[in-house]
Amino acid sequence: MALALLSARPPCVCRLGSPYVLHRGAISLTAGRVSRARQSISRRWGCSDAVTRAAAAVTEKPKTGKGPKPGSDKDKRITPKSTDFSRWYLDVVRDAEMADYGPVRGTMVIRPYGYALWESVQGYLDKRFKELGVQNAYFPQLIPYSFLQKEADHVEGFAPELALVTKGGGKELEEPLVVRPTSETIVNHMLSQWIQSYRDLPMLLNQWANVHRWELRTRPFIRTLEFLWQEGHTAHATAEEAQAMARRMVDVYAEFAINGAAMPVIAGRKSKIESFAGANITYTIEAMMGDRRALQAGTSHDLGDNFAKAFGTQFLNEAGDLVHPQQSSWGASTRLIGGIIMTHGDDAGLRLPPRLAPVQVMIVPILKKNTDTEAVLKAADDLAKAATSAGIRAKVDAGTEKTPGFKFSFWEMKGVPVRIEVGPRDVEQGTCVAARRDRPGKEGKQFGIPLDSQGFVGAVQQMLDEVQEGLLAEATAFRDANIVDVTSYDELKQAIEEGQWARGPWAGSDEDEKRVKEETTATLRCIPFDQPASVGSCFLTGGPAKEVAIFAKAY
Amino acid sequence: MALALLSARPPCVCRLGSPYVLHRGAISLTAGRVSRARQSISRRWGCSDAVTRAAAAVTEKPKTGKGPKPGSDKDKRITPKSTDFSRWYLDVVRDAEMADYGPVRGTMVIRPYGYALWESVQGYLDKRFKELGVQNAYFPQLIPYSFLQKEADHVEGFAPELALVTKGGGKELEEPLVVRPTSETIVNHMLSQWIQSYRDLPMLLNQWANVHRWELRTRPFIRTLEFLWQEGHTAHATAEEAQAMARRMVDVYAEFAINGAAMPVIAGRKSKIESFAGANITYTIEAMMGDRRALQAGTSHDLGDNFAKAFGTQFLNEAGDLVHPQQSSWGASTRLIGGIIMTHGDDAGLRLPPRLAPVQVMIVPILKKNTDTEAVLKAADDLAKAATSAGIRAKVDAGTEKTPGFKFSFWEMKGVPVRIEVGPRDVEQGTCVAARRDRPGKEGKQFGIPLDSQGFVGAVQQMLDEVQEGLLAEATAFRDANIVDVTSYDELKQAIEEGQWARGPWAGSDEDEKRVKEETTATLRCIPFDQPASVGSCFLTGGPAKEVAIFAKAY
Repeated sequence: MALALLSARPPCVCRLGSPYVLHRGAISLTAGRVSRARQSISRRWGCSDAVTRAAAAVTEKPKTGKGPKPGSDKDKRITPKSTDFSRWYLDVVRDAEMADYGPVRGTMVIRPYGYALWESVQGYLDKRFKELGVQNAYFPQLIPYSFLQKEADHVEGFAPELALVTKGGGKELEEPLVVRPTSETIVNHMLSQWIQSYRDLPMLLNQWANVHRWELRTRPFIRTLEFLWQEGHTAHATAEEAQAMARRMVDVYAEFAINGAAMPVIAGRKSKIESFAGANITYTIEAMMGDRRALQAGTSHDLGDNFAKAFGTQFLNEAGDLVHPQQSSWGASTRLIGGIIMTHGDDAGLRLPPRLAPVQVMIVPILKKNTDTEAVLKAADDLAKAATSAGIRAKVDAGTEKTPGFKFSFWEMKGVPVRIEVGPRDVEQGTCVAARRDRPGKEGKQFGIPLDSQGFVGAVQQMLDEVQEGLLAEATAFRDANIVDVTSYDELKQAIEEGQWARGPWAGSDEDEKRVKEETTATLRCIPFDQPASVGSCFLTGGPAKEVAIFAKAY
Repeated sequence: MALALLSARPPCVCRLGSPYVLHRGAISLTAGRVSRARQSISRRWGCSDAVTRAAAAVTEKPKTGKGPKPGSDKDKRITPKSTDFSRWYLDVVRDAEMADYGPVRGTMVIRPYGYALWESVQGYLDKRFKELGVQNAYFPQLIPYSFLQKEADHVEGFAPELALVTKGGGKELEEPLVVRPTSETIVNHMLSQWIQSYRDLPMLLNQWANVHRWELRTRPFIRTLEFLWQEGHTAHATAEEAQAMARRMVDVYAEFAINGAAMPVIAGRKSKIESFAGANITYTIEAMMGDRRALQAGTSHDLGDNFAKAFGTQFLNEAGDLVHPQQSSWGASTRLIGGIIMTHGDDAGLRLPPRLAPVQVMIVPILKKNTDTEAVLKAADDLAKAATSAGIRAKVDAGTEKTPGFKFSFWEMKGVPVRIEVGPRDVEQGTCVAARRDRPGKEGKQFGIPLDSQGFVGAVQQMLDEVQEGLLAEATAFRDANIVDVTSYDELKQAIEEGQWARGPWAGSDEDEKRVKEETTATLRCIPFDQPASVGSCFLTGGPAKEVAIFAKAY
C-alpha cells in the first residue's frame, strides 16, 4: 500500500521537563514537581525535532535570532509585554504550561493547566445554556462534501479552509468527507428529518466538539488548525424568535466574558462583510487585548431560513402552511483562553480571574529549620480543607526543595489569584498572610487573616471577589482609555496608527469598508449595541450616519 | 477544483416528528411535545433519503420486508426482545430517541436523551479519574501516518480501520494524516518532550475525545465509525507501577459498571490474541447483554515500554540511568450506552439505572375535568422542587394533550426509574403514588407517599436506591444463570450453541484459541480475576490448567 512507503520521521530528540503540579493528588503537591519549570522553558526553542520545527516555521513564535539560548540566564524570564507582546504571549503560554505545539503544523496540545481553565469555561457556559432550555447532543464529525455546497455562501466561505478525508478503511472514498469546520449543514440534514410541525419548535441544540480550519498563520489558542468549541444550533417557528435567540446568546457570551472572564467586551453587530458565511446577521463580542488589538471572542448568527431552504427543512405552522423554520447558530471556543491570557497577563505571567482559575488559592507553608514545621504543615492543610469545604479551589505547595520565594514567583506566573503564606510565627499568633495576584508587592498583601475556618474562608472569599472586580476594572479602564471617538478618516487613521480602537459614525458601503481595511489594516469590528444618543455624519463619506462603528486591528 | 464537481445529493424528503421533551425548560414540559413520538417512529424506516438508506444498508437494522408499514398499527410497538433481540435494540434506540443515523455510513447522531445519559457516565468517571490524580488534557486529532508505523503491532492492528486526511486548505498533503483511532502515538510524541527525569513521573493524563475506526458492520452505540470516549495515558518509573495503574483503572471501570450502570461485569485479563495492538497485557470488563452475548465494556492496557521505545521516550531514574518509562492506557466509550440499554431494557423500552438516568423521577399530574387542576399542578410542581432541591433529577409532565396512561407508557419507554402520580384525591389526602420502572404493574406501586417535602424526598430516594439495587440483582441473577462451567470441549460447544457463556479450565495455545473461535464463533472474553480455588485440566487440550477462561459470542 502506498501509505506504507512513507518515510518515518525521526523521533523528537529533545527532552523537556514538565512539572505537572496541579490536580496530582488531593491537596498537597509532590515536592519535586515545582522544580523544573525554568529548566523546561530554557530548552523549548532548542528543540531539534524536525516535525515541531516545521510547525514553528509558520507559527507565530519568538525569532530564533533573538531567542533565548539554552542554559543562559536570559531565557529564564518571560519577555516583557512592552518589549514584544507577541513573544510575551508565547512565553506565558509555554511557562504556565497552558499548551504545546502538536506535531502537525498549526496544531496544539492543550496541557492540563490550560485544559482545566477550559473546563471552567465549559462549566460556566454549559450551565447557562441548560438554564435556557438548550440540550446537548453530538453530530458526526465527517460531513459529505456535497452538504457544504448546498448553501452557496457557506461553501464559498469555508472551502479554502477544509480538511478532507479521502480514504477510509484502506479504500478511496467515492465522495470526500469534510472534517467539520462547523456543523450547520449536517445539523440541518438531521433537522429536515426531525422537524415536521410547529410543535417540534423551538428546537434548541448544542454540541461541545472539535473543529478544523486549515489556517495559514496560527497562534496557540487564538488560531489553530484544530480547536475545541461549543456550537449551538436552534430552529424556530418565526424569524423574530430566531433573531431573538441569536441576540440572547451573544448576551450570554457577553455576560460570561464580563462576569466570568473579567473581559470587558463590547457586544454588537458585524458588518455584512465580516458576517458568518451563510448568516443574515452576525452578532459578536469584541475584546481588547493587552496590545490593544481586538479579539473576536464569541459570535452568534441569525441564519434566517438560508440553511433550511438549502436542506429542504419545512414544517406545518399553526395556520397549516408548510414553511421553513428560522434558525440561529452560535459558538465560543478555546480562543477564549488566549483572550484571558492577553487581557490580564502581566510581565510576571498569567493573572487568572478567580471565577475561572483552576486554583484560586495557593497556600505556601513557610518551613524554617529549628521550628515546628509539623504545626505549620498542619495549619496549611487545615486552611486548604476549610477552603475546599466552602467550595474554594485551594491547594498547598508543601514541597521542601524550593524556597518560598521561588514558589511565590512560580504561582504568580501561573496566575493564581490569591496566595496564602503561613509560617511558624503566624501559627503561634493564629493568623496568616494573604497576597493578591492583581496588586504587586506589599500593596496586595493583607496581614492578620485569622486561621480559624470561618474567619479564613470569609477573608479569602472577599479577596477573591476583590481580585475578580479588580481585574475587570483594570481591563475596563485600559479599554476605555484606548477607544478614540473619531469624526474624520484622518482621525481614524491616527488612532489606528497609534494602536487604538477608533469609534465613529459610519454609513459606508461594503467597498468603503474594504478600502479602510486596505489602507489602515483595521477592520470593522462591530456596530455596538450601545449607541450614542446622536451620531452625526459618517467619518469617511460625510453622509448621514445612523450608527457608530468600531474599527481596529484584530487577531 | 475537482471537489466542486461532485454531484450534490438530494435532500432528505422524509419528515419525522421529534418530541424533545427533556431539559427544555426548568421543570414543566411543554404540552405538545409528548405527542408525536409514535408518529415519528412510524415513518423512520419509510425514509426515502438516499444517503440514510445507503447507511442503513450495511448497518444492523430491521429487515425492510418484515418492517413496519408507515401508518400501520404494528409499527407502534417495540419488537419484543424474545422475537428479535437485535431489532428490539434498534427499536428502543429509535423510540427513546437515544440516537439516529448520520448521513455517512456507520455514523451516528447522539440525540439529547442519549447524550444526557453519556454526560452522566462522563460525570461519574471523570470524578473518579480526578480523585486518582489524573489530569485532563487534549491532544490533536490528526496524527502523521508515520507515527503509527513506529510501533509495529500498533500499525498492524489499526491500519485496516483508518480514516485518512489527504487534503488540507485546498492542497494535497505531503504526508497523509490519520484521524485518531486512539492516541498512544501522539501522546508519546509529546511525552518524549515532557519527560526527562523520575521527578516528572508518574504522569497521569486523560482526554475526552472523538475517535474514528472504519468498521464494516456497525450498530448504534455498539460499533460506529466515530464514537466518543475517554482515553487515559500514563507514564511511570517502573513496570510494577504501570501494571498497577492499568489494573487500578479496570477496577474503576468495574466499579462504575456495577455501582453506576448496574451492569454486573466480569473483570479479567484478555488473551494475547484479544489484547490491544501494542499492549503487553489488556484488562477488560465483560458484560452480558440481554441476548447473552458478551460486550467488552471498557479496557485497560499495560503497555510496558513498547511505545516509549518506539518514540524514544527516556528519563533519568533515581540511580542516574537513562531508561524508558513504563506506560498504561485505558478507555471507555459511548458503547457503554448500548450496554446499559441491552442489559436492562425490556419489552416496554429502556430501564435506566437511577444513578445515571437523565430524569430519575417523572411526576405526572392527573388532571380531571371539574376538579381543582390548579391544586394538582401546584402539588406536582412542589414535589419537583422538593426533589430537585435534594439533588434528585425530577421533572413534571404537565401537558394536557395526552392522557395519563399515554404518559405512563411514554416515560416507561424512556426508562425513567420512578414515576409519581398525583391527582385531586391525592392532594386532598396529602399523598401521592409512586411506581417503580423495574417492577411491572401493581407490584411496583407504592401508595400513600406523603406530599410533604421531607417525607416525599425520603420515600423517593429510597425507591431510587431500590430500583438501582433491583436492576443490578436482576442482571446478576440473569448473568449467573447463563454462565456454564464446562470441563470438555463438547460441553463448551453445547453451552455456546445454547447462547450461554462457557467458563472452563484453559491452557490452550493461540492456535487452540483460534480453533475454538472458528469452530464455535465464541471468543475468549477474559480470564477472570476471580478464579476458583482449584482449576483442573484444560477443557480442550486436557493439559494442566492454571486458570479458568470465559468463552462467549460477543458484539
